[in-house]
Amino acid sequence: MRGFKELIGVEEALEKLRNAITRRITDSERVSLLSAIGRICGEDLHAPQDYPPYDRSAVDGYAVIAEDTFGASPMNPIKLKVIAKLEAGAEVSELPEIRRGESVEISTGAPIPRGATAVIPVEDVEKVGGGIEIRGQVYPGQNISRRGEDFKLGEIILRKGELIRPWHIGVAASFGITELTVLRRPKVAILSTGDELAEMGEEPGAGHIYNSTKPMLASALSVLGCDIIDLGISRDDVNKISEKIAEGVRKGDLVIVTGGTSIGVRDLVPEAISKIGEVIVHGLAIRPGKPAGFGVVGEKPVFMLSGFPVAALIQFRVLVTPAIEYLLGCKFDPCPRVRGRLTRRVASPPGIRSFVRVRVLRTASGELVVEPLRLTGSGMLSTLTRGNGLLIVPEELEGYEEGDDVEVELLSPIIESEVNKR
Amino acid sequence: MRGFKELIGVEEALEKLRNAITRRITDSERVSLLSAIGRICGEDLHAPQDYPPYDRSAVDGYAVIAEDTFGASPMNPIKLKVIAKLEAGAEVSELPEIRRGESVEISTGAPIPRGATAVIPVEDVEKVGGGIEIRGQVYPGQNISRRGEDFKLGEIILRKGELIRPWHIGVAASFGITELTVLRRPKVAILSTGDELAEMGEEPGAGHIYNSTKPMLASALSVLGCDIIDLGISRDDVNKISEKIAEGVRKGDLVIVTGGTSIGVRDLVPEAISKIGEVIVHGLAIRPGKPAGFGVVGEKPVFMLSGFPVAALIQFRVLVTPAIEYLLGCKFDPCPRVRGRLTRRVASPPGIRSFVRVRVLRTASGELVVEPLRLTGSGMLSTLTRGNGLLIVPEELEGYEEGDDVEVELLSPIIESEVNKR
Repeated sequence: MRGFKELIGVEEALEKLRNAITRRITDSERVSLLSAIGRICGEDLHAPQDYPPYDRSAVDGYAVIAEDTFGASPMNPIKLKVIAKLEAGAEVSELPEIRRGESVEISTGAPIPRGATAVIPVEDVEKVGGGIEIRGQVYPGQNISRRGEDFKLGEIILRKGELIRPWHIGVAASFGITELTVLRRPKVAILSTGDELAEMGEEPGAGHIYNSTKPMLASALSVLGCDIIDLGISRDDVNKISEKIAEGVRKGDLVIVTGGTSIGVRDLVPEAISKIGEVIVHGLAIRPGKPAGFGVVGEKPVFMLSGFPVAALIQFRVLVTPAIEYLLGCKFDPCPRVRGRLTRRVASPPGIRSFVRVRVLRTASGELVVEPLRLTGSGMLSTLTRGNGLLIVPEELEGYEEGDDVEVELLSPIIESEVNKR
Repeated sequence: MRGFKELIGVEEALEKLRNAITRRITDSERVSLLSAIGRICGEDLHAPQDYPPYDRSAVDGYAVIAEDTFGASPMNPIKLKVIAKLEAGAEVSELPEIRRGESVEISTGAPIPRGATAVIPVEDVEKVGGGIEIRGQVYPGQNISRRGEDFKLGEIILRKGELIRPWHIGVAASFGITELTVLRRPKVAILSTGDELAEMGEEPGAGHIYNSTKPMLASALSVLGCDIIDLGISRDDVNKISEKIAEGVRKGDLVIVTGGTSIGVRDLVPEAISKIGEVIVHGLAIRPGKPAGFGVVGEKPVFMLSGFPVAALIQFRVLVTPAIEYLLGCKFDPCPRVRGRLTRRVASPPGIRSFVRVRVLRTASGELVVEPLRLTGSGMLSTLTRGNGLLIVPEELEGYEEGDDVEVELLSPIIESEVNKR
């Protein structure tokens, strides 16, 4: 392929990208606990105390001395006195003490009375005048949550770089923590190039087309928690593009330039990057999306993506999502994958990683089938709106045969055939 | 198990839940295109015109009459005149016309000149004085994106009930659409019950514990796009709980009550629901999380979840997430799943769906292994923060054996052994 001297494989490009990202995001901010969901933890968080803070009951029942229950069964119930009742929330410094033959009625979460070594669940007990008859045995420690069993004082409960999820919010709340330190959001500057583009909301001139790639990428970035710096549209002029990239590098952590990167009449973006920095990868062994790459300007990565939305989205998944992970030192959730039977042969050039847009559907019999979509132009957004998955053909294969069992990245849920819908 | 007369299986409970949700959310609102990401589409959106709006070039190259290229090869180049140049954005009403032996230099996205039937890529062409030499042939239609090829006027481009994703934003933008109609966010009222609970930010009394379940569920709900109505904490009193549920039903689309649902000393929530509505399911065949269920009050679903955070989170995944899907008529993304080798036997009672918290890690050799966590108390949040997956043992199995190849729902990314980290 003329123009691209050689196409660089995805893994090699990612290795170069990791090395190129020398300035990680380290500034953090304090946010309220509930608004920390989905953000990236900015510092290791240590348990400020043991949790549970005291031995407590894991069930509703009766706190007993385990030995008192030995030998008890429905045929041989054992009688115990009930000397007190403890609810969750009971004062820990004023707990009753039990002796052999005694028990304390206890609620889930209530502190264990002094002397008790187990809790027998309410289901295994019958109330009888003034006491209880127990019909089962418990071993020492049974149904007791020990102090520090869940978290020990000082233990790390949330690590720097972790994506904060509902259970992290739960853990922090259980310690009374009301704010968390999170990394600031990455700032991503986006520049579109192309004389033919009209910006969203503008009245397009004759022959102009709306810029659909920028809003698409901006929304993909917002899903990853990034703030967007919109650098507008640059006309096809190397100096203007260079100036805009320099502005993006000043204002953002990362710059994305779309359009003008294929080897053609107007191959301006690599030239614009070279004027103020260095092009590191140009020409990626993927399909669609070959004319992709990145450079470094002022220690910040600058991505060259296609102006075509589908190619740009594939390039974004391959290059930009990992770059944001490197910047934040985090790992986003993997894409759900499913396996299904391919309904039609797909071909892929050797040495190229192909992203084939497919429909994954469950037939009436429950089988998953993977239908490659016929239209595969890199501009064809309909292949994403009609499809729901990407079949990735690795570099070492030249495709898959009809009937092959293939793995697919799901972009949206499996399509259920009408028969399966309820 | 005393108390729960019978446990209801998950599928049966979901069937009852679907039938119980009779009032779907249908009110919608108009939002700007970029803020529609992640929302649920509120009406079918039709293509307002053909897309592409005219025949255009899919590559940088030369528009030609295909027949003129027949027989061309590197050994037998064919010469053509270049009569004009068309950039993307060229005026469609003033296109040049080509005749046999002529060509027009054309940019990707530019309209096809009259008379041309194909575009030959720039890579297959050599410029020679005043014209071009072509070294390959193109068939009629090659490298031309036809008007309406991507979307036809009137075709549905985004369906009511679809979760709006980056490519939908791209499609809408390509038509110049700047606002979308989305369903309003579901309003979920949450009530905690329990005399022992202190609210986040409060100074807890002696023996009190912080309410961790509510902030955890609130953040899980916010991830699903819900607005939260906080009904506070109700002390353990049937009438007060009933009043609060009635308030939640007035203000929200769905009510969640946590705590007080196990069959024990203080089984108040089912009673509180029965006073003003109907309990439909109480006691679910899952572990952890058995004391879960739901009822209907004033045509709205009221969920009874555990006060223990881990049980509550499992119950939330099993019951509440589907309820929100039913309310919105949408389908959220499936959880990513992976397969790995189980390192230790896990047991599960027959007839129960068990959710075993596990660590999924990739060993130095690249193998995925699934390690069940030893601590399995329903209050143990550490099983979620230390683990990264749920191994779901279906009702018909009594567990898995060590070494079994099992499928796991990933709650966060696979843990890479140090050797694999770069």
